[in-house]
Amino acid sequence: MDKLIEKIELMQNPTVVGLDPTLELIPTFLKDQYLNEDLIETDYEYSSAVARMFFDFNAQIIDSIHDIVPAVKPQIAMYEQFGFNGIAAYINTCHYAQLKGMIVIGDIKRGDIASTATAYASHIKGTMINKKEFDFWKEDFVTVNPYLGIDGVQPFIDACEKKDKGIFILTKTSNPSSADLQDLLVDGEPLYYKTAYLVSKWGERAMGQRGYSKVGAVVGATYPEQGIELRKRMPHTFFLVPGYGAQGATGKDLKGFFGQDGGGCIVNSSRGIIGAYKNDKECTEKDFAVAARKAALNMKKDLAESF
Amino acid sequence: MDKLIEKIELMQNPTVVGLDPTLELIPTFLKDQYLNEDLIETDYEYSSAVARMFFDFNAQIIDSIHDIVPAVKPQIAMYEQFGFNGIAAYINTCHYAQLKGMIVIGDIKRGDIASTATAYASHIKGTMINKKEFDFWKEDFVTVNPYLGIDGVQPFIDACEKKDKGIFILTKTSNPSSADLQDLLVDGEPLYYKTAYLVSKWGERAMGQRGYSKVGAVVGATYPEQGIELRKRMPHTFFLVPGYGAQGATGKDLKGFFGQDGGGCIVNSSRGIIGAYKNDKECTEKDFAVAARKAALNMKKDLAESF
Repeated sequence: MDKLIEKIELMQNPTVVGLDPTLELIPTFLKDQYLNEDLIETDYEYSSAVARMFFDFNAQIIDSIHDIVPAVKPQIAMYEQFGFNGIAAYINTCHYAQLKGMIVIGDIKRGDIASTATAYASHIKGTMINKKEFDFWKEDFVTVNPYLGIDGVQPFIDACEKKDKGIFILTKTSNPSSADLQDLLVDGEPLYYKTAYLVSKWGERAMGQRGYSKVGAVVGATYPEQGIELRKRMPHTFFLVPGYGAQGATGKDLKGFFGQDGGGCIVNSSRGIIGAYKNDKECTEKDFAVAARKAALNMKKDLAESF
Repeated sequence: MDKLIEKIELMQNPTVVGLDPTLELIPTFLKDQYLNEDLIETDYEYSSAVARMFFDFNAQIIDSIHDIVPAVKPQIAMYEQFGFNGIAAYINTCHYAQLKGMIVIGDIKRGDIASTATAYASHIKGTMINKKEFDFWKEDFVTVNPYLGIDGVQPFIDACEKKDKGIFILTKTSNPSSADLQDLLVDGEPLYYKTAYLVSKWGERAMGQRGYSKVGAVVGATYPEQGIELRKRMPHTFFLVPGYGAQGATGKDLKGFFGQDGGGCIVNSSRGIIGAYKNDKECTEKDFAVAARKAALNMKKDLAESF
């Protein structure tokens, strides 16, 4: 978490770009190049073509923004839907972003019982084979689901400590129906306050040097009042904030998510950056990476007014 | 769900075998065969060797049990820790089990906001590329995490309807700390009752012909009293019950999980079956698949006394 904070300060930009490609978001010229049906036929060839196309798209975005944006957050579902070739594109994307100096937040939202959570924790902890350690995933942070309680989370916290990496635990998510469970009243307070309490408590075991724990929280930008309340309740918890841009939130909504030090928060935008070329009249689709950089700079400016 | 019920009735066996290989569980002779360090060197070769070894192990288990056990439940975390090669072994395992006539429950515990949940739902719905549909995952059911509410679940329910497949939503999990969130009191009742209510309600939209919805629930065998209570509250919800065997529950603990029709429930055992050779004095490790069949027959007998 300290490294993330330093990178944000260096770039004066608390932004993470969500690398969530879809076939709809990919420019036509790339689809023509990779998904030429004269050249592909089998299931394997189709998923391999999509995987290579997604990586090409992501790499161009990363090349265009790596000097102004501290982190990327690939959402693994977007890759997973194309099977193991899709997963390969996810891992290659993570690796490429790391090589370009960016911090990688793997949005995997895993959560399971103890022995299985230990296997998932290999995303940041690495995997042992014949007493050799391998890093098959190339992520610096991952997101974690808290529904199974501490023994589903502890293996990730252990991995954070061992590898100086971090996690973000779902606390109040940005989607409309997050209320179904998260807002149920427990002792007169919404459930996500309990989650917030647990996340803070679990995080005490893994404090960094800069006042924030390696155990962060996911708090949706679409709920600004809840964000203010959670910031008060979780002064040492770093927030990963999705929901900016395409999901509706703006910089003004986010003031309360930042701590008194003006930090403690990184804001994600996905479609608003990587699909910016669709709404940028000055750019053709071939300039999709240029449009992404412009959109990232606009977001930086918008956020600067909020913290 | 109807197909699962018919298969259980045909085999008179409400058992699912968890295909959760680990390096510790794999017999030494297989490790010597695949992980020969004279032949493997790169990260790719190591993960590929593990992937092929896991598939070989699983395929022998499947060959040995497919005529007496209706379903398998591979836990994706065990494969995911070996990167995309591991994922390939997971998919190959699912596919092989389907080819052998078994029903495949992918234990993936995914859950995310709407657009992302739609991507995850491709596990059972398939994926469209250039107006062609592909099934990259080969699963009949998947497990789903409810923390994000209905818009994280709806895409899976839609997929169930479209493809005549099913899901199991985490309700009361088998691990010790499931109480951290699931047992918090909401209106004087534990949270998992609310989850149970939501799962039942969501499931009404996807009823099968045999009295049970395509939307099932995960209810841990390690909490027998809670199982009885949930069975009363969810008469039309099929239960996937982990926690038998290695996690401590026995057939006697499970009576209350079954419905009045003696059905409505499938019980998982993983290590107790696939690692049975380690405790079977009549079998050498080369007979691991024979030991698995014996253990599966013993489990069938134990369960027969409970329903």
